Amino acid sequence: MKKILFVLSFILICSAVSFGQKLKPIKLLKPQMEGGKPLMQVLKARKSSRVFSKKKLSVQMLSNLLWAACGVNRPVAGKTGKRTAPSACNWQEIDIYVAFAKGLYLYDAAANILKPVLAKDLRAAAGIQKFTKDAPLNLIFVTNFSRMGRANKKSKEFYSATDTGFISQNVYLFCASEGLATVVLGYVNKPMLAKKMGLKSDQKVILTQPVGYPER
Amino acid sequence: MKKILFVLSFILICSAVSFGQKLKPIKLLKPQMEGGKPLMQVLKARKSSRVFSKKKLSVQMLSNLLWAACGVNRPVAGKTGKRTAPSACNWQEIDIYVAFAKGLYLYDAAANILKPVLAKDLRAAAGIQKFTKDAPLNLIFVTNFSRMGRANKKSKEFYSATDTGFISQNVYLFCASEGLATVVLGYVNKPMLAKKMGLKSDQKVILTQPVGYPER
Repeated sequence: MKKILFVLSFILICSAVSFGQKLKPIKLLKPQMEGGKPLMQVLKARKSSRVFSKKKLSVQMLSNLLWAACGVNRPVAGKTGKRTAPSACNWQEIDIYVAFAKGLYLYDAAANILKPVLAKDLRAAAGIQKFTKDAPLNLIFVTNFSRMGRANKKSKEFYSATDTGFISQNVYLFCASEGLATVVLGYVNKPMLAKKMGLKSDQKVILTQPVGYPER
Repeated sequence: MKKILFVLSFILICSAVSFGQKLKPIKLLKPQMEGGKPLMQVLKARKSSRVFSKKKLSVQMLSNLLWAACGVNRPVAGKTGKRTAPSACNWQEIDIYVAFAKGLYLYDAAANILKPVLAKDLRAAAGIQKFTKDAPLNLIFVTNFSRMGRANKKSKEFYSATDTGFISQNVYLFCASEGLATVVLGYVNKPMLAKKMGLKSDQKVILTQPVGYPER
């Protein structure tokens, strides 16, 4: 019996250590809030691209991308701060998960950090089309209905969709400004992806959006 | 009998003439696709504002605003062209109606023109909150389900919401770049507004967005 317990403990400890080793938080750099191309030029260049090179984004580029998407642009003491994208009733119900080859992370805008979620490559599951696995990262927009007050289910679904649209367009424009490739995807097996991500019942995948450098 | 017919004809002609005089198409100017502030600075300044001055936008500003929202950024010969905002399956199902004091217009992006719809001031009906009538214009985002192929009703509602989000965020960023005030509104009596606008059964109001100069 002692031997069995020892072996079980050993397995548990090994799993925990292995998980911890594989996935540590990614401390993002301070976003650069001054640069980028002029807005009208960015809008002229806005487009969807479905071919990605394997080249990774630098931590600074990643930090800027996530801040542009829905980062804190007007800090509020003691609160999560106001954002680059609006949300209905300021619910801030949309979370951005980021799927890299090394694993899945959750963007914490207030702390400017990527929190580890799962040491698995979920890029292929972030869309039906094959190119999602080629991009160095896939953004996964997830709503959390529990933050949406007493709204009924239909309203929660509606505003989760509009509020994801605001964020996704910021990603499009950031990519247009920086010469990155991106496309927003609704053609996703959302229940399967939610299961792989380990989402709770009040969390729903809304859209996904691979981001990377264009393949030349 | 002749007299009655004459009087009736006279009334009809007068109504038609009066309607025509009140509302003519607004020929938009060529949008300026090069200017604007740097994108990151625009994202930093992005916010919702609910106080509007009565000052009107110039035709050039209006033309730039509508182009930024969902204008043609990549013309395609013989087609409606690709846009500054994406839409699911490129359905381009979202129309922008513009409510001014003098009446309601429909933005035709391909022709770069505002088509007259109704010689009535619908700004007060574009939101429950009183400030909508103060803004010189209210954008009204309307989906047209008949453009959305064989998608089921739930999908049509979902993508109409996401696709409006993309466009609305463009409006937010254009306003941030130009020092204009704006706020997106879901708190709208949509069936009442749709009725006043004379929308068809396959058209639905998604969101509205007053735009103007800030009250100083």
